[in-house]
Formats: sequence, C-alpha cells, structure tokens
Amino acid sequence: MKRIDELTAALGSIPCETNPRLVAQRSRDFYWYSPVLKRQLDGVTGDIVISPRSEAEVVDVLAACYRLDIPVTPRGGGTGNYGQAMPLSGGAVLDLRNMSRISGIEAGVVSADAGAIIHDIDRAAQAHSGQELRMHPSTARNATIGGFIAGGSGGVGSIRWGTLRDLGNVISARVVTMEASPRILALTGYDLHKVIHAYGTNGIITSLELPLTAAYDWIDTLVTHDSWLRLNQFADVLARQDGLLLKQLCTIEAPTPHRYFLKHQKYLAPGDHVIVAMVAHHAVSAFEALCRQERMKIAFRSDILPESEKRVLPPAYELAWNHTTLRAIRLDPSITYLQTLYPNPVHVEKIAAMSALFGEEVPGHAEYMRFEGRVSCDGMPLVRFSTEERLDEIVRIHEEHGCPVFNPHRYTLEEGGMKQTDEVQLAFKRMVDPKGLLNPGKMIAWDNPDYDFNAPGYYLFPGIKKDGSFRDEIPSLD
Amino acid sequence: MKRIDELTAALGSIPCETNPRLVAQRSRDFYWYSPVLKRQLDGVTGDIVISPRSEAEVVDVLAACYRLDIPVTPRGGGTGNYGQAMPLSGGAVLDLRNMSRISGIEAGVVSADAGAIIHDIDRAAQAHSGQELRMHPSTARNATIGGFIAGGSGGVGSIRWGTLRDLGNVISARVVTMEASPRILALTGYDLHKVIHAYGTNGIITSLELPLTAAYDWIDTLVTHDSWLRLNQFADVLARQDGLLLKQLCTIEAPTPHRYFLKHQKYLAPGDHVIVAMVAHHAVSAFEALCRQERMKIAFRSDILPESEKRVLPPAYELAWNHTTLRAIRLDPSITYLQTLYPNPVHVEKIAAMSALFGEEVPGHAEYMRFEGRVSCDGMPLVRFSTEERLDEIVRIHEEHGCPVFNPHRYTLEEGGMKQTDEVQLAFKRMVDPKGLLNPGKMIAWDNPDYDFNAPGYYLFPGIKKDGSFRDEIPSLD
Repeated sequence: MKRIDELTAALGSIPCETNPRLVAQRSRDFYWYSPVLKRQLDGVTGDIVISPRSEAEVVDVLAACYRLDIPVTPRGGGTGNYGQAMPLSGGAVLDLRNMSRISGIEAGVVSADAGAIIHDIDRAAQAHSGQELRMHPSTARNATIGGFIAGGSGGVGSIRWGTLRDLGNVISARVVTMEASPRILALTGYDLHKVIHAYGTNGIITSLELPLTAAYDWIDTLVTHDSWLRLNQFADVLARQDGLLLKQLCTIEAPTPHRYFLKHQKYLAPGDHVIVAMVAHHAVSAFEALCRQERMKIAFRSDILPESEKRVLPPAYELAWNHTTLRAIRLDPSITYLQTLYPNPVHVEKIAAMSALFGEEVPGHAEYMRFEGRVSCDGMPLVRFSTEERLDEIVRIHEEHGCPVFNPHRYTLEEGGMKQTDEVQLAFKRMVDPKGLLNPGKMIAWDNPDYDFNAPGYYLFPGIKKDGSFRDEIPSLD
Repeated sequence: MKRIDELTAALGSIPCETNPRLVAQRSRDFYWYSPVLKRQLDGVTGDIVISPRSEAEVVDVLAACYRLDIPVTPRGGGTGNYGQAMPLSGGAVLDLRNMSRISGIEAGVVSADAGAIIHDIDRAAQAHSGQELRMHPSTARNATIGGFIAGGSGGVGSIRWGTLRDLGNVISARVVTMEASPRILALTGYDLHKVIHAYGTNGIITSLELPLTAAYDWIDTLVTHDSWLRLNQFADVLARQDGLLLKQLCTIEAPTPHRYFLKHQKYLAPGDHVIVAMVAHHAVSAFEALCRQERMKIAFRSDILPESEKRVLPPAYELAWNHTTLRAIRLDPSITYLQTLYPNPVHVEKIAAMSALFGEEVPGHAEYMRFEGRVSCDGMPLVRFSTEERLDEIVRIHEEHGCPVFNPHRYTLEEGGMKQTDEVQLAFKRMVDPKGLLNPGKMIAWDNPDYDFNAPGYYLFPGIKKDGSFRDEIPSLD
C-alpha cells in the first residue's frame, strides 16, 4: 500500500477515501444482476476512492497515478450491469460525482460535467426552457451523464432517437488522457466513437455537450393483451407511427408485469402481457384511436388518475429497460436476464419464436427502438437461472436463431458487445493510455490482441485482484 | 344569375365579391403547373367569392347555398397544384382567409382557424414559446393551414414526421356540413381521415388543432456530387440517421439546380446534383462529420455566410418540393412535373433507374421522407413537356416500373391519388353533403360510383362550366 500512501500525499486537497469498507461500497456497480459476474467479481475492490471537483483535479489525479503506476477505474452512479465500474486490479476508483455542474443550456443543447445526475439535467433544462435530454436510462435518478455515455447504449427515448452511438446524439466530449502530462482532448463527430461505450478504458470523460429536445407532459400508459404475439405486432405498428410522439415503448411478457410490478398490480391481470409506453400529452387522442382501431385495451393511463393515486406510483420508465429485471430480482433473487437484439425486419417474429422456444424459463421483454432508420428491438428477457452452463446454452440458442446477444454475464467490452476488436477504441487507447492503467481488464484486445472470440468459454482477466467478499445491497424501489 | 343575387341578399353583412375579374382571379390555384389542367380548366370561374369572418358566418353561407342549390368550393392561399380550389361548376368560392385567428398556443399544440397563413402560425408559435409546426408546404408564406390539410399531403418536415395522414400529425378539426341546417362536427383520431386531403368535397374545415415541435435555428445547406446515384445513396444514409435532426432533405438532379436556382447559382456548377437539407444548428457538426466520412461536398451553408449575402437568398425550403418546379417553370414555361413514389426499400434504385430511362426529358427530384416508420421518397421530377400523349406514357412507364404516380395532371381526388374510391370520404360526403354541392367534380366516386379507374384516358366532369379565358400570373420569386 506504499504507492497508495504516496498517491494520497500527491493528491493534496483533492477529496479521497481509503476506509476499506467505504472504498468497497463505492467499488461496485449493479454487476450482481448477473450470477456469473457476481461469482467472478464478488471480492473486487479498489484501494482508494478519489473524488475530483474539476477537470484540473482530474488531470492532477491521472498524472499522479501514471507516475505511480496505479490503475484508475472511473465511475458515476454505479448503475451499470456489466461491471463497467468494477476496479478489477484494485487501485483508484475515480468517482466523478463531485463534478456535477450543468454549465450551459440553450435551444437544443446542454453542457454538463460528467458527474451530473441525468435527472438533474432534465430538471434544469425543463425549468430553463421546457427542454430535456433525448434519452436516459431507467436509472436516470441515480445515473450520471458521463456513466451513461461511457457505459450505456440507449434507453428511454431510443424509440424516437436511436442509440447513443448514432451520430448527433452526443455533440462533443472533453476527455483527459492517462499520460505523464495528461492532455485534454475535445472530440466531436465520429471521433466520439473512440470513447462512447468504452467503459473509460481509454480516457476520462470530464464534460459533455448533448442535444436537447422538447420536454412534454409524458403520459404513462400500460396496454394489455392476452396474446404475446399480437401485443408485439401492435407494438410494432405503434413504433412505426412517425406522427405519434412516444418517448418509451416496450413489451413485457406475462407473468412478469402482474407478478413483479407491485404498485401497478391492481391495474393488471396475471395473464396480461403489457406494453409500457410514454405518450406525449398531445398524442393521446391519436394513441387512443390506434388502440381502439386495433382492439387493444389501455389498462392504465396516468393522465386520468387522481393525484393521490398517481403520487404513489413510480414513473413508467422505472418499469422498463433494466428496471423490469430489477423489480423481478427484488422479489425473486434467482432471476437474471439477457440482452439481445431482435433485428428488423424479423423482430416481432423472433420475439415470438424465442418465447415459444424457452417458455417460462425466459419470459420476454422487448424494447422497441429506432436503429439505422428503422424499428428494431433490444431484447431484455428475464432468465430463471439454473446453472452457468444452461445460461451459456440459452445465449448460444439465441445466437443460432439470429438474435445476437450482448452478454451481460461478461465484464469485457468485447464479450458484452460485438465479440470483436473495436479497432478505433484500441488505437485510441494505445495513444492516450500507453501504460494500460485505465479500467484494466475490460478491453481484451489490449491485453491479448490475438484472443479468439470464437473460442468456447470466456475471457478471464489475469490481473484480477480480490481483497475479500462484500455484500451487495439490492436498492429499494418505489 | 338570379340565384346569386338571392344569395347576395341572404349573406347580409358577410363580405362577398361579384366583380367578374376579381372573382376569376380568386377562382384559380396553381393548377397551371400542368399543361393538361391548364387546357382543361382555363376558363373556369366562380360567380361569387364569399369571405366569411367566423365559423358562424360559414354556417350561414352554407345554409344559404344549400337552400339555393349553389355549389361551394373552398379555398385558402390557392397554392395547390391539382386544381383543388377551382370551382368547376361555378357558384361560390368560399375564401377562408378572413378566418386567420390563431386562438391558442401551448406546449406541443396550436389551435388556429383554417385561413391562418402557415408562416404566421410558425412566427406566432416561435415568439410564444420557441415552437413551430411539424411540417409545412414550400408555399408556407402564402398557404393557409386549412388548405394544406385539405389539399396537401406532406412537405418540409416530412423527413422527420411523415405525412399529414399519419396519426398524430393533426389533432382535431372542426368541420361545417352542407345541409339545410349545417352542423359543426369535431373530428379526432381516424375520423380525421374523412376530411384530410378531401379537397373540401365533404365539409368545410373551419379550425384545426395541430401538434407543434421545437423550433430550432435551421441551417440551410446544399451538398453536391457529380453522380446522381451516389448523391441519392448518401441522402438515404443521411435520412436514416435517427440522431441527426433534419427538417428537410431532397435530391435534385443536374442541370436543374445550377440552371434554375438563380440566387444560389454562384455556389453551384452546371453538373452538380444537389441535396437541399435543413439541419438543426446543434446537428451541424454531426452533419459535417457524415459528409466528410462519405466524401460529400457541402457547397453551401447558411450559417457561415455574411448577413448581407444571406439576406438576399430565399430559404432552402423554397428550392424544394414544388418550388423546384416553380423555379424551373418561371425560366422555361415548357416544363411541368410529375408526382410519384419511390417506395422503400428500392427507393434509391428506382430514382436512378427512372433517371437512366428518361435522361434529360425527366430531370430527377426526390423528397426524402418517413413513411410507415421507414425512409421513402416522394418523387417530383421535372418533365420537359411535349404532348399530353407522351406525358401519359411517362406516367405509365413509371407505374410499370413500380413507381406509383399521384398524377398532378388530373383534377379529381382519385386520379391524383390512389386511383380507387376512398370509401370513408365517400360515406362521409353522403352524410354531410347530400346535394353534392361541395367542390363538385373532384370526387369521381360521388358522380359515378361505377367508374372504371383502370380504363384508359381520364375522367371528364360533365358539370364543368367555363365562362371565358383567364390569364394566369406566374408569381415572382425571391
């Protein structure tokens, strides 16, 4: 620990924490949604948490860590599920939440520091000029904007705007490099792909410019049907309505909604498959017309609820994306999930086919979104976990059926992503993190350029370091 | 004319005009883009122009005309190209431009009377809360909102929002019926399809509720390339960027842009094929990145122009849609155009194929838009007119190649549209216009339910009435 003492001395007035219990707490994310990651990463912890208050302090931290060869793993709200923020080799956890300044809001654009909470940005933009971010994760109340860009891929809003990687969904990013004299780079356009969804392995994002869109009074709705196929066919029709403004659209197979959405249970029957949609208030009459035309039942509408009833309910987006999984895990810890793609134009067909194939073992959940100018679905089915072997088999069967899996039971960028080297991100890492100190173990291509992604099994980072076993708390939910 | 005298007496203080020269002037629209309609409708004129100032006055006018069996043809700015506003059987022209009140603006919604000029609505919504209409025709400075809904199908904004018929692009309409005691109906949802694009044949739209969207500083751009195919391939890539906010996107084949866009000529070369795009100011860096990546040249960008240079230029949308045609006709009156569909997913292929087939006789023009959740193209190619027979042949060849034509050389709803009876609009007309007095001659299904749309030739309305020959003025252009 001598190097950590040296680091502490070098940090001067920059806030840091070395109490092992507190460091362990802030060395975790929501990796425990996966029983595999839970087993693999259970004892992982950093040695110190550093909480810079400015970009200049980030520069100082990185310079000191570079000099002392101390690994640095950045984190925001710690709401990722792929172990993005877990410091596999220990060292410093760089907690960016002290950098939460929202520095500018104008028509269509917000500038914010990486550690700003997404919901706070939305509140500020709404108050300033009736605007909000185009998209956010279901964890918007805890997640930071930097964490979302570095560790997420899309979310609430993707039905209208596509994914974070889509050109135009991030305007610019400032990034600090991990060098003897860290540089500050300003990235725009395609250069943003160097750091979007790179888990902070190749630079620390300190601030971002993001597009805003009009904030409307979004009406939360639940549409139900007793046929899973029919519900998804309807969701697809809904998704293709270019004039019907939605912010969120997903389908969740029975028995998940009635069983796990406790606060909404009274609006649902046990056999209800459910659409969770957020509809602009001025689109509600069109939405109703479409539901009537297609003989679909609107079981829940937040805009016609008494205020007293509405107040106790979580927002609809906290039923969707990985909050669906979270609600299930809270009531049944044996549940986990997958992340897959049901590709256009066969998305509805694939959703139904996977459901028919796996039945109650893999209850369906499809997030409708725009992808390359068309409607596609991000699959987030629940999985009733039995063994790791069976989980791998479920993954394999999905892929054999043309549903690529972004495996949330792997902690590397490649295995959780496209199962291939991202040459752009690797080249950038070579340039800005020559010692490989940023978030070690997350980019296979860096550790082992010859790794065979088609080999069976998974990559085990040789530098993994465990200091004990820690108890993960499942957060309470509205 | 006795009935017209009786009508005048019945109108009381409602403004009207019977001076034949003034009535003739206000009995025309931009039908003269078509040499066929020009020949057929040249001498058409109403007997009286009535300009009600309120919905109550519309009710009085319709009741009086119903009693006296006088046909009523509604009009707004008269900027339609299908003869929508031409009073084929004479009678009353109902000029709605006195009803121009913008009665309410809130987040996402504007309420306006049918005669409000579209550009005025946009200016009011912008000033009120930084909003604007989702879409408008290229004639926004003269066209009324009622005319657009009753006679148009889409326009600037359709690249983001689809067409006017898409659910959600009109929220509600108030419609006055043509009966002994005219009723006022409020239509929403699918019921709007009764009157959208019905040319006022089955009710008079008096006011509308329409969705608003955020008004941004739209940057006018021209992108050029010397390959028509390559330019369209790029336009398609651009159209599919869900995160790159555009308000307008079309491609125009050489020599049209350099030859006819006089104010923009200095930015272009004679062989340039051109994309006309309106890009949100906060999307410009993404737009530039994409152009650079795809090796496309941005020949013109309004945001980097000196104010003095910018001031003398028309807005980009006045180079697009049927303003492309208008600019060509002003310099070469032998030019006309077609309206066709290049359907997804073969749109780019069809654009190139039609261009290869017809060469200089039919210079290409494709408006990129969203249609049923995907990118499609509305084709508006110019046509160097020779004979009506050849024009019909060009139409036929398009249709044989899978490019349906919405023939702008026909004045009926069906021939200018889907070439089939719209049962919804017909049933509604039976209910609200039992005497068939509204815009007579425009709905074939009303006049002849057994008409064979597959027969060669065209429908000739037997009730057509000509009172002379009038000179059509081609408007001057910025």
